[in-house]
Amino acid sequence: MASSMILYWGSGSPPCWRVMIALEEKNLQGYQQKLLSFEKNEHKSEPVMAINPRGQLPSFKHGDKIINESFGACLYLENQFKSQGTQLIPDSAAEQALVYQRMFETLTLQQKMADVIYYTWKVPEGERHDSAVKRNKEALSAELQLWEGYFQKMDAGSYAAGKYFTMADVMVFPQIAYAFRFGLSQEKFPKLEEYHNLVKERSSVQASWPPHWKETPQGMEILKDL
Amino acid sequence: MASSMILYWGSGSPPCWRVMIALEEKNLQGYQQKLLSFEKNEHKSEPVMAINPRGQLPSFKHGDKIINESFGACLYLENQFKSQGTQLIPDSAAEQALVYQRMFETLTLQQKMADVIYYTWKVPEGERHDSAVKRNKEALSAELQLWEGYFQKMDAGSYAAGKYFTMADVMVFPQIAYAFRFGLSQEKFPKLEEYHNLVKERSSVQASWPPHWKETPQGMEILKDL
Repeated sequence: MASSMILYWGSGSPPCWRVMIALEEKNLQGYQQKLLSFEKNEHKSEPVMAINPRGQLPSFKHGDKIINESFGACLYLENQFKSQGTQLIPDSAAEQALVYQRMFETLTLQQKMADVIYYTWKVPEGERHDSAVKRNKEALSAELQLWEGYFQKMDAGSYAAGKYFTMADVMVFPQIAYAFRFGLSQEKFPKLEEYHNLVKERSSVQASWPPHWKETPQGMEILKDL
Repeated sequence: MASSMILYWGSGSPPCWRVMIALEEKNLQGYQQKLLSFEKNEHKSEPVMAINPRGQLPSFKHGDKIINESFGACLYLENQFKSQGTQLIPDSAAEQALVYQRMFETLTLQQKMADVIYYTWKVPEGERHDSAVKRNKEALSAELQLWEGYFQKMDAGSYAAGKYFTMADVMVFPQIAYAFRFGLSQEKFPKLEEYHNLVKERSSVQASWPPHWKETPQGMEILKDL
C-alpha cells in the first residue's frame, strides 16, 4: 500500500512534518518521497505543480488520489487505514470532541506563528511597522499562553488531548517544536517544554525529524522575547 | 439528542453557518441556539467565554463536550451521527480524498477573503498601504479563479467535490455566498455563480440562511472590482 504513495516535502515545514508523522503512526513506512528545497524554489517545480496548482508542500498522492492539504491528508490516512497502526481519532464522543477542538486550534497557532516568524519575508520593506511587529508578538504570546494553560490543567505527561497520542498531537507538535527551534523560552513555557520533551522521543517523530534541524539544532531566535 | 446541544452563533459568519448547515444535514433540528451580536461584542459575553476562552463564534456544546472550531464541530457531528441524515464524508477513497482536499482549501479562501474584507477593521490607520490592499485583492482574485477552474472542470451541476453534497460544500458554500454578498462579479465567476445558485436552494442552507441577509441582501461591494 505505502509504495503507491508519494510525498513531496520540505525539511522543517510543520505541515509536511504532520503528514510524515501520520504516515509513521499508521505503519505506512516505505512510501516514496522527495525532499525538495524551498530556497531553490523546488516547491514550484513541475512534478509538484502537476499535482498541486498551489505549488506548496506537502504535496501528496496515493495512487491517483491527491490530497495536498496536510489536515486533509492526515484525516484521509486515518480513515483509510483505520485499523492499522495508532488510532489517531478516538471513538468516544468526549475524547473525540477534544481531539477535534485542539486539532483545529492548531491552525490559529500556526497563523500567529507565521505572522511573527515570516514578517520580513511576507511584508515588503515599505509596509513594515514596529507597531505591527509588536502586536503580532503579543498575539502569539497570548496564543502560546493559552496552550501552556491547557497543559497546566491536564495531568503531567499528557498529550495534547489527554492520555493518548492522537491527531491533535500530529497537528500541534510540529508547531511547538518549531516554536522552540525559533527560541521560545523554556522558562516561560515550562508545560509546553515538558510536552515537547515527551513527544520528541516518540519513534514516529524521531523517524521524521527535519534533517536540517539535526545539523543546526537552533534556528534564528525570533521568539526569544515572547 | 439535538436538545442537549447548544450553539452560540452570529448572523452571516461563515464558520457559524457551517455548523448550522451540518446540524441540518444530520437531522439535528431542535438544538438550542442563541444568536449573538458581533457589533454589541456579545461574542465576548460570559456564556461564550465560559466555554470558549477565545471569545469567538461559533461556540458549540453537546452535553458536556465542547467543540468551538467550526471544522471540528462539523467533523464531530458527522462521526457521531454517521448513519443519520446526509453522509458528508464519503467512504470511497477517491471521493473522500477530494472532499478532504476541497474542505481544507476552504481555509485558504477564507483567509484571503478576510485579508480583503476586514482590512480596515484589522489594520490600524497608520499601518495601511494601498500596495497591500492591491496585493491582497490580487491574491484573492487568483484564489477565486482557482475555484472557478475547479468547477469548470467538473460536470454542470456538480457540488464542490463532485456529484453529491458533502462536507466540502458545508465548508466552502458559506464562503462563496459571502463573496457574492460582498459584490463578487457573476460575470467574471460564472461557474461559482452557478454553484451558488445550486446550493442556496438546498433546504439545510435555506433553513440556516443568515437572518440579517434577508433584510439587506447586499453587503458592501468590496469585491466588485476583483
